[in-house]
Amino acid sequence: MATPGDFKIARSVLTGYTADNELHRALTILRNEGINPEVVVEFAAERDGIFCGINEVKTLLGRVLPETGREVWALDEGVGVAGGEVALRIRAPYASFGLFETAILGTLASCTGWATAAGECVDAGGGVPIIGYGARHVHPEVVGVMDYAAVIGGCVSSSSVVGQQLHGLIPSGTMPHSLVLLMGDTVRCMMAFDKHMPPEVPRVALVDTFKDETEEAMDVAKALRERLRGIRLDTPKERGGVTPDLVREIRARLDQGGYNHVEIFVSGGITPDRIRGFVEADAPVNVFAVGYYIASASPISFTADIKEIDGRNVAKRGRIPGLAVNLRLTRVL
Amino acid sequence: MATPGDFKIARSVLTGYTADNELHRALTILRNEGINPEVVVEFAAERDGIFCGINEVKTLLGRVLPETGREVWALDEGVGVAGGEVALRIRAPYASFGLFETAILGTLASCTGWATAAGECVDAGGGVPIIGYGARHVHPEVVGVMDYAAVIGGCVSSSSVVGQQLHGLIPSGTMPHSLVLLMGDTVRCMMAFDKHMPPEVPRVALVDTFKDETEEAMDVAKALRERLRGIRLDTPKERGGVTPDLVREIRARLDQGGYNHVEIFVSGGITPDRIRGFVEADAPVNVFAVGYYIASASPISFTADIKEIDGRNVAKRGRIPGLAVNLRLTRVL
Amino acid sequence: MATPGDFKIARSVLTGYTADNELHRALTILRNEGINPEVVVEFAAERDGIFCGINEVKTLLGRVLPETGREVWALDEGVGVAGGEVALRIRAPYASFGLFETAILGTLASCTGWATAAGECVDAGGGVPIIGYGARHVHPEVVGVMDYAAVIGGCVSSSSVVGQQLHGLIPSGTMPHSLVLLMGDTVRCMMAFDKHMPPEVPRVALVDTFKDETEEAMDVAKALRERLRGIRLDTPKERGGVTPDLVREIRARLDQGGYNHVEIFVSGGITPDRIRGFVEADAPVNVFAVGYYIASASPISFTADIKEIDGRNVAKRGRIPGLAVNLRLTRVL
Amino acid sequence: MATPGDFKIARSVLTGYTADNELHRALTILRNEGINPEVVVEFAAERDGIFCGINEVKTLLGRVLPETGREVWALDEGVGVAGGEVALRIRAPYASFGLFETAILGTLASCTGWATAAGECVDAGGGVPIIGYGARHVHPEVVGVMDYAAVIGGCVSSSSVVGQQLHGLIPSGTMPHSLVLLMGDTVRCMMAFDKHMPPEVPRVALVDTFKDETEEAMDVAKALRERLRGIRLDTPKERGGVTPDLVREIRARLDQGGYNHVEIFVSGGITPDRIRGFVEADAPVNVFAVGYYIASASPISFTADIKEIDGRNVAKRGRIPGLAVNLRLTRVL
Amino acid sequence: MATPGDFKIARSVLTGYTADNELHRALTILRNEGINPEVVVEFAAERDGIFCGINEVKTLLGRVLPETGREVWALDEGVGVAGGEVALRIRAPYASFGLFETAILGTLASCTGWATAAGECVDAGGGVPIIGYGARHVHPEVVGVMDYAAVIGGCVSSSSVVGQQLHGLIPSGTMPHSLVLLMGDTVRCMMAFDKHMPPEVPRVALVDTFKDETEEAMDVAKALRERLRGIRLDTPKERGGVTPDLVREIRARLDQGGYNHVEIFVSGGITPDRIRGFVEADAPVNVFAVGYYIASASPISFTADIKEIDGRNVAKRGRIPGLAVNLRLTRVL
Amino acid sequence: MATPGDFKIARSVLTGYTADNELHRALTILRNEGINPEVVVEFAAERDGIFCGINEVKTLLGRVLPETGREVWALDEGVGVAGGEVALRIRAPYASFGLFETAILGTLASCTGWATAAGECVDAGGGVPIIGYGARHVHPEVVGVMDYAAVIGGCVSSSSVVGQQLHGLIPSGTMPHSLVLLMGDTVRCMMAFDKHMPPEVPRVALVDTFKDETEEAMDVAKALRERLRGIRLDTPKERGGVTPDLVREIRARLDQGGYNHVEIFVSGGITPDRIRGFVEADAPVNVFAVGYYIASASPISFTADIKEIDGRNVAKRGRIPGLAVNLRLTRVL
Repeated sequence: MATPGDFKIARSVLTGYTADNELHRALTILRNEGINPEVVVEFAAERDGIFCGINEVKTLLGRVLPETGREVWALDEGVGVAGGEVALRIRAPYASFGLFETAILGTLASCTGWATAAGECVDAGGGVPIIGYGARHVHPEVVGVMDYAAVIGGCVSSSSVVGQQLHGLIPSGTMPHSLVLLMGDTVRCMMAFDKHMPPEVPRVALVDTFKDETEEAMDVAKALRERLRGIRLDTPKERGGVTPDLVREIRARLDQGGYNHVEIFVSGGITPDRIRGFVEADAPVNVFAVGYYIASASPISFTADIKEIDGRNVAKRGRIPGLAVNLRLTRVL
Repeated sequence: MATPGDFKIARSVLTGYTADNELHRALTILRNEGINPEVVVEFAAERDGIFCGINEVKTLLGRVLPETGREVWALDEGVGVAGGEVALRIRAPYASFGLFETAILGTLASCTGWATAAGECVDAGGGVPIIGYGARHVHPEVVGVMDYAAVIGGCVSSSSVVGQQLHGLIPSGTMPHSLVLLMGDTVRCMMAFDKHMPPEVPRVALVDTFKDETEEAMDVAKALRERLRGIRLDTPKERGGVTPDLVREIRARLDQGGYNHVEIFVSGGITPDRIRGFVEADAPVNVFAVGYYIASASPISFTADIKEIDGRNVAKRGRIPGLAVNLRLTRVL
Repeated sequence: MATPGDFKIARSVLTGYTADNELHRALTILRNEGINPEVVVEFAAERDGIFCGINEVKTLLGRVLPETGREVWALDEGVGVAGGEVALRIRAPYASFGLFETAILGTLASCTGWATAAGECVDAGGGVPIIGYGARHVHPEVVGVMDYAAVIGGCVSSSSVVGQQLHGLIPSGTMPHSLVLLMGDTVRCMMAFDKHMPPEVPRVALVDTFKDETEEAMDVAKALRERLRGIRLDTPKERGGVTPDLVREIRARLDQGGYNHVEIFVSGGITPDRIRGFVEADAPVNVFAVGYYIASASPISFTADIKEIDGRNVAKRGRIPGLAVNLRLTRVL
Repeated sequence: MATPGDFKIARSVLTGYTADNELHRALTILRNEGINPEVVVEFAAERDGIFCGINEVKTLLGRVLPETGREVWALDEGVGVAGGEVALRIRAPYASFGLFETAILGTLASCTGWATAAGECVDAGGGVPIIGYGARHVHPEVVGVMDYAAVIGGCVSSSSVVGQQLHGLIPSGTMPHSLVLLMGDTVRCMMAFDKHMPPEVPRVALVDTFKDETEEAMDVAKALRERLRGIRLDTPKERGGVTPDLVREIRARLDQGGYNHVEIFVSGGITPDRIRGFVEADAPVNVFAVGYYIASASPISFTADIKEIDGRNVAKRGRIPGLAVNLRLTRVL
Repeated sequence: MATPGDFKIARSVLTGYTADNELHRALTILRNEGINPEVVVEFAAERDGIFCGINEVKTLLGRVLPETGREVWALDEGVGVAGGEVALRIRAPYASFGLFETAILGTLASCTGWATAAGECVDAGGGVPIIGYGARHVHPEVVGVMDYAAVIGGCVSSSSVVGQQLHGLIPSGTMPHSLVLLMGDTVRCMMAFDKHMPPEVPRVALVDTFKDETEEAMDVAKALRERLRGIRLDTPKERGGVTPDLVREIRARLDQGGYNHVEIFVSGGITPDRIRGFVEADAPVNVFAVGYYIASASPISFTADIKEIDGRNVAKRGRIPGLAVNLRLTRVL
Repeated sequence: MATPGDFKIARSVLTGYTADNELHRALTILRNEGINPEVVVEFAAERDGIFCGINEVKTLLGRVLPETGREVWALDEGVGVAGGEVALRIRAPYASFGLFETAILGTLASCTGWATAAGECVDAGGGVPIIGYGARHVHPEVVGVMDYAAVIGGCVSSSSVVGQQLHGLIPSGTMPHSLVLLMGDTVRCMMAFDKHMPPEVPRVALVDTFKDETEEAMDVAKALRERLRGIRLDTPKERGGVTPDLVREIRARLDQGGYNHVEIFVSGGITPDRIRGFVEADAPVNVFAVGYYIASASPISFTADIKEIDGRNVAKRGRIPGLAVNLRLTRVL
C-alpha cells in the first residue's frame, strides 16, 4: 500500500487520452507552425468553495513540466477559494502542458466540489464528527480521490480502503446489512464481529435490520456490554428514516439500562439541512455518516485563461488581460 | 487503442481497495464462521432514469464470479429504468462477489446519472444533435466512462479521446480559445487549422475570442468559403452568453453573404432549459455542445438487497422478502 | 339507551342559557313594547359543505314553536349545501323562537363542519371505508353529535358509545395502547382479547406498541391465525408515522406467511391528503381511522336574516330583502 | 344559577358513554384477567398553547378516583404549556380512571384550543379589551365551556348567559340586528333599549342596519347624548367589512360633534391579523368582539401515556419510559 | 372646435425642441460633412399591444417629409401589433426626418400603451361598455391623446372635452362629488341637474356622497323616476370600494321598487382583474368607468433602426440588416 | 427660448377643454342655481413620493384665481410627500377654479410620478450621476415637463432640448446609433464629431454599433486620445445588455492602454435594481442614463376633497370633515 498523499497519475492521463480532442489538434497545429511561446495560464474558480486537488495536480505537473523555465503558484490544499479568484498559475512553454488543461480542470472541479460539500456538513454539525460514506454513489475509479477530498473538507475519516492511501487515516465503517442478514440475527452477528475483529476495530452495531431499533440496540448492549462502542441507526426511508425523536428515545433507554458509554452513529440520506435539524433539536448524535450528499456534489468548475504570451498581456474577449493580483498564492513548483 | 466497449477493470477495484471497509470486515467474519451461502442480491434504482453501466459491471462480474453456479440478470444498457425497479439480479455464493457491492453500486449510480442527464438534453433538443463536452468538469479517471454514458444517453459523440475507446465514435470538438490566442488572430488560426488538419476533420471555427461574433464569423467564412463546415458560438457569460437572437442574427448575416452551408454550433453553460429556450425561439442551431450539465449530474443511486439465502426468502426490515417480478430482465451471465 | 336519531335538547338550551345575552335583551324590549310580528328568518351557509344538524334543530323547533301558525322549510340532512344558499327558513311569531337563533346557528355550524370534513376523507378514500375516531379531541359533551355528523358525512362508523345513540351503528374500535402495555406483550394481549370478547367483536390487533410492526403483525397472525380479522398500524410520528411502503411490506409479509385474510387498518394523523397519498401509491389499506381531521374541522357558519315582517320584505343593509328562491327546500314542520 | 367555577359533569360522561368503545373492551378484559395495577399516566400537549380545562378535569377525577391511593399533579389553569410538555399526571389504580381517558383528553384539547386562540387575540390587541362572541358558531352544549376558556385565555367577558355560570363575569353584548329590524329604525330602537334596560346595562348601539354607519352613529349620539356608552360597527362583508379608515372617520365625526365619550366597538370576522391591522393603523377601537376565530380554534390535542406500572418504568415504542421531569406541576388531588 | 381626427402638431415638436439633443448634433455633423443619403428606418414594437398613434405621426410626417421621394408604410390605427413586429417604415432623405425620431417614438409608445390598457379592460368586460376616465391622472397636455387612444383601444367614450376633438364622440361623465357637496343633498343635486341640463344629457346620479348607496339610490329613483338613466357607484376604498355584492343588492332593491330601467355605473380603481371579478360573480353592472389603469399604462416602446442606406442593407450590431418582411403594412404616404 | 421655470399653460387647459366634462356640467348647474360659496379644497397624495408639479400648478392658479379672497398653501417643489398627506390647499370661490381640478390633479400626478422614479434611480446610484433619457418613451407634448420632473427628482440633466426651458440645465446626450451607421465607421464618426462640435460639448463615443465594445472603445481612445471624454455602452439586449463584467473589463483595458481619463457611460434598460447591481458589483460606471424607467413611472395620483364650505366643515362619506393639520405647508399665493 502506498504512502499517504502519494498520488498516482494514470497512464491514460499522462498520454493525454483523457484530454479534449481539440487540444490534440491545437498542439499539432502549433507544432507544425513552429509556435511554442512561454505562456502564463491562470485557473480561477467559478464559485466559492474549499479548494482541493492541488496536490494531485502538482504531482501531474511535476511529471510533465520542464525542470527549468517553469513556475507554478497556487492556493494551499484545503483553504477557502472565492468565486472568480485565481487559485493556480502556471508559467511554462505552452507545448509542455497545454494537453493537460482538461485533466487539471477536471481534478480541481471534482475535488473542490466534494471538499466543499463535506465542509458544509462539518459546519452544520457544529463539532459533531462527520464520516465520508459516499463510495457506493460514485464510479470506483474516483472513490479514493473523493474520500481524500472529504477529509480535506473536514471529515474525520471515510469508508473506503483506497481513501487511506491518499489521506492516511484509518477507514471508518461499521458493518453492512448483508452481514446481519447472513448471520440471521443481530446479536449473533455482533458476537461474531467481536470475536473475529482485532481489538482496535470499534464495535459499532447496525440495529435496524430485523427489529425495532430500540429493541436491537438494547439486545446488543446487553450482549457486549462495555465492549460495545456504539450503535448505528440507518432506518430505511420506508420506516420514516432516522428522526431526532428516535435518537433521543434510544439515548434515554440506553442510559436507563446503564449503557451511557454507547455512542449513537446516524446515517441514511444525511444532508446539512438534516444535520442542522438534529442539532437544533438537541438530539444526542455522536457521529454522522454522510454518503450521497458528498458524492453527488456538483463540481465547482474552474476556468483556464492564457493571460500572458512571451511577456505580453493578452486575454480572450470577456476577460481582463495580464496577471491577476492574488497575494494568497504560494510557489509550489 | 482498445476495441470499443472493452472495459478495463482497474486493479484497485479487483483487489477490493475501492470497497467500503466494512465489506472487508464482513467477509473476514463470514469466512471465519464458515458461512458462504448462495444468495440472491437485487439492485434497484432509487429514481427514474436511463440505465447505464451494466456493460462495465458485466465485465467485472465475469472476472470474479465462478463459471458455474452463477446467474446474472439485468436490464439492457440504455433502456429506461423506473424508481424502485430491480435492474440487476445476481445469484452466486456470497463470498464470490460481496466485496464488489460498492463498485457495482457506484458504477451504476454514476453512469445512470450521466446518461440520464444527457438524455434530458437530447429530449429538449427535439432532433438537434447534442455533443458531450464535460471532460473538464470531472476527474480525469472517469472522463472515459462519462463520455461513454453520454453517448448511451443519446449524444452523437463526445469530446475526449478516451471516450472513443468505450463508445467507438470519433471524438467531436472544434478548437480551444488558447489556439486562437496563440495564433493571434481568428482568421490566421483557422487558415492554419485548415492547412494542418486531415481533410476528414470538419473545419469549425470558434468565433468569439477577439471580436464580436458576427464580425469573426463573416471573416472566417470569407477566408475558408465552402471549406468552412461551421462556426462555434461560446460567448462568455461576461458578454451575456449565447442568445437565440444572436444565433438568428448570425444565421441571417451568413445567409445574406451567401454562406448558407455554414452550420452554427452552440456551447457554454447549455442546459435542457436553455436548449428548450433556443428551440421555442426557433433559433437555427445545428449542434449543441453540453458540458457541465452532464458532468455535474447527480448520481442515480441504487440499493442492493439480499432477497434469498440458500433458497429462503429474506429481507431486511423495510424491504419485501423474496425476488421481485420483472419481466424486462434478461440473463447476461 | 335511546332510539337512534332521538336527539335530546339540553335544559340549558331550552331555557336560553346558551343564547347570546343580547337576544334576552331584545326579547325583553320587544315584549315591553308589545311587538311580536310574524317574521320569516332565513339561514344561509357561508361556504360549501355537507349540510348536517337539521334533525337536531327540528327537534328543538318542535319543542318551542306554536303548533299552528308556524312553517319550517329546510334542506335534507346530509345533502350538499352551497355557500350563500338558504338551507333553513322559519316562519313564526318572532317571540316564539328569537331566543334560539344562537343554538340553531351553532348546531348547524358545528355539525356541517364535521360532516364536511368527514366527507372529504370519504372522497379521498375512493371506496376504502373511513371510521370516525375523533372523540379524544373534542369536549365530551359533543362527542355524540360529532360522531353522528361523521356518519352523516359518509363514515361507516365511529368510535364512541354515545354516537350509537344518534346514528344507530355499532361503534367501531380495536384496542388501546394501554391494554397492550398493561398485558405486557402484544400476543398475550391479543389472546386475552380473543378469550374475553364476544365472537361478533372483530379481532383487530394494534401492532406497534413494543416492536417493529412487521414482527408484531406476524406474531399475532401466527397466534390467532384465521380468527384474526386485521391489524391496526398507528406508528407514532417519532417513528415516522405509517407510510405506504410500510403497508405494502406488511401486506407482502402477511401474504407470504399465508395470512391473506388479515386486513390492515391505518390510523394516526390521517388527513384527506394522506389518504390520497396511500391511494395514489396503491398501498393496500382496508380501513382508515380518522380522528383529529374531523374533530378539528372549522365550523361552517350560517347567517340568520329576517327577510319578511308581517308580510313585508325587509333586510338589513348588505342583504337582499324578501325570500330567496330555493326549490331544494322541503317542509319539515 | 350555579356558582362560578362549579363544573357539572354530564351523566353521559360519568357513565362512560362518551368514551371510545375500545376502552370499555379493555376494562372488561383486564377485569376478567384480574389485572388492575397502580399506573402513572402522563398527559402531554402536542403543541404550544394556553393550558385550559384542568378545573373541569379535576372535578371529574374528584368524582371517580378513590379517596386514598391517588395522586394528581397538573399545571395551573391558564398558564402557558409547551409542545411535548407533561401538563397532567395521574397515579391511581388503572380501573378507577382508564375509562375517562377520552373525556380528559377531549376536555383539555378543546379548552386549550379555545383559550389559546383567545390569547392570540388578546396579544394582538396590545391592551384593547377583547370579548368572546363565539356562541353562534359552536354546538350549544359547549357554549359555556368555550366562553369559560375564552376568559381563561384573556378575554374580559363573553356573550352567552351560560358562560357566566362558569367564569362568573357579567355577559357582554349589545343588541342584535333583528331588534333593529323589528323596531324599524335605529334611533327608535335605541330609545326603547334605553327605556327598558336597567341602568347598569351599557347603551351600545349597533349602527349599520339601515344606513351608513357614520349617519346612524351621529343620529343615536344626538338622541341619547351622554347616556350613549358606545356604538358597535359590524359592517357586513358585502359592504367591505369594518376598516381602520372607517373607525377613524367615525371617531373624528363623533369628536367634531362633541361626543368624545362615545366608545367604538368592532365586530365581524375579527382575527389576530385584523386586530394587528387596526392597531398598526392606530385606529381608535375601544373593544373588539371576536367570534369565529375563537370558536373555530383547532383543538390542541394531548397524548396520554402509561409511564409506570406498579413502580416499573414502561412506555410504548416511540416514547421514553418513566416519569418526565416537570417542576411546574403542582398537586391538585 | 376642430374636426375629429384633426391632430395639431405642437410648434415645439415641429421645431425639434422636444427631440433628444443628440439628434440636433447628428444633423449638424452630417450637414457639415455633406452626408444626406436616402435611408429606410423601421420602427418595431417591443411587446404585444394595440397599435395606436399612427394617425398623429402621419400628420407630422406629412408636414416634414418632401412631397416626392418619400414612402411611408404602416399598420392601421387600432390593429394588434406583435412584439418585434415592424409597424412603421419610412423611406426618405435622412435630413428630412432624422430630428423627429424622438417624437415619433414617443407618440407611438404612449398611445399604444394607453390603447392596449383600454383594450385589456374591454376584453375583461366581455361586452359591458367601458368609459375612459383617466384625465385626472395625467398631465393636461396629453389628456386629449390619452382619451383618443382609449377609444381606439375599444372604449365607448371618454370623460374629457378635449378628447372629443380627436375621437369625435360625445364625452361621457356623470357628476362630481363636489357638486353634491355644494348642493348639500344628493336628491336636491339631482333635481338641479335634471332642471338645468339639456335633455340629451343622461341623468346618472352619484349615490355615495352622504349616505349608504342603497338609500341614496332609492331616493333619487323615487325623485326622478323614469327620467333617471342610472346611478354611479364610486364607493371610496375607506368604505371597502364597490363590490359585486353591493351591485347585486342595489339591483335587487331597485327592481323591487319598480326601477328596472335604472342602470348601474361602476367606477373607482377599476382594473381588468376587478372587471373580471364582477363578470365572474354575475354582478349586473351596466357600464365600467376606468381611470388610473388606462392613465398609468406603461408605454409600449418602439425601436427605430436604419436598415438601408442608399439601397445598401445595413444594421447596427444585434439587428438583422435589410428590410423585414411584413405584409400587413400598407402605404400611408 | 424661455427663461427657466417659465411654465406656459396651454390654451386648451385655460379654456377647460382638458377638464372632465362633468365639471363643466357642475359649473353650469351651480351658476344657474346661483351657488358659488368660498370653499377649501385639499389635495392629498395617494402614496409616498417626491412632490413635483406645484410650480406649474401655481402658474395656472395665478392666472385663474381672483387677486383677493384667495389663499393657496402647498409643500415645496421636490420635497418628500407621504401617502395621505395634504400637499396643496386652495381657499377661493368655487367657480373660480372648480373647472381646473382635473388639470391640477393630472399635473401633480404625472410630475410626482416621474420625479419619484428619478429619485429611486438617484438613491440606487449612491452618488453616481443619473441623466434623464426618457423622451422617446412619452408623447412629445410632455417631454419638457417629464425632463423637468426628472431633474427635480435628482437627475443632473436630461436629454431633450425643451427640458432646458424648464429646468435651465444644459441638455445631456452623446450621439445616436444612426449617426454612426450613416458615417459607416465609429472612429470616422467620432473624428467628425470632434471636428464639428463646439469645444464645450464633451466627446463621448457610442461604442457598440459595429464591433465588440472593447475593440471600438480602444479604437476611439487611440484616435482622440486626451480629447475623448468618455465612451457610452448601450449593448442591445440581443447581445446580453451591459453587464458589470463588461464595464470592469473595458475599464481595465482602457487603463492598461493609458486611457485612465476616459469615463464610462451606461445606458439601455437601466432600472434602480440594475443600478444597484452595478454598484454592488463595484463596476466603475461614471454616469447612468435612464429612459424607460422614469418615462413609464406610474402616476402618483392625488385626491381632491372639499373640506369646508363657507366656513362650515364638510366631507363626503369616507373622508374626515374639516381641514387637516399639516405644518409643512407654506403659503404660495
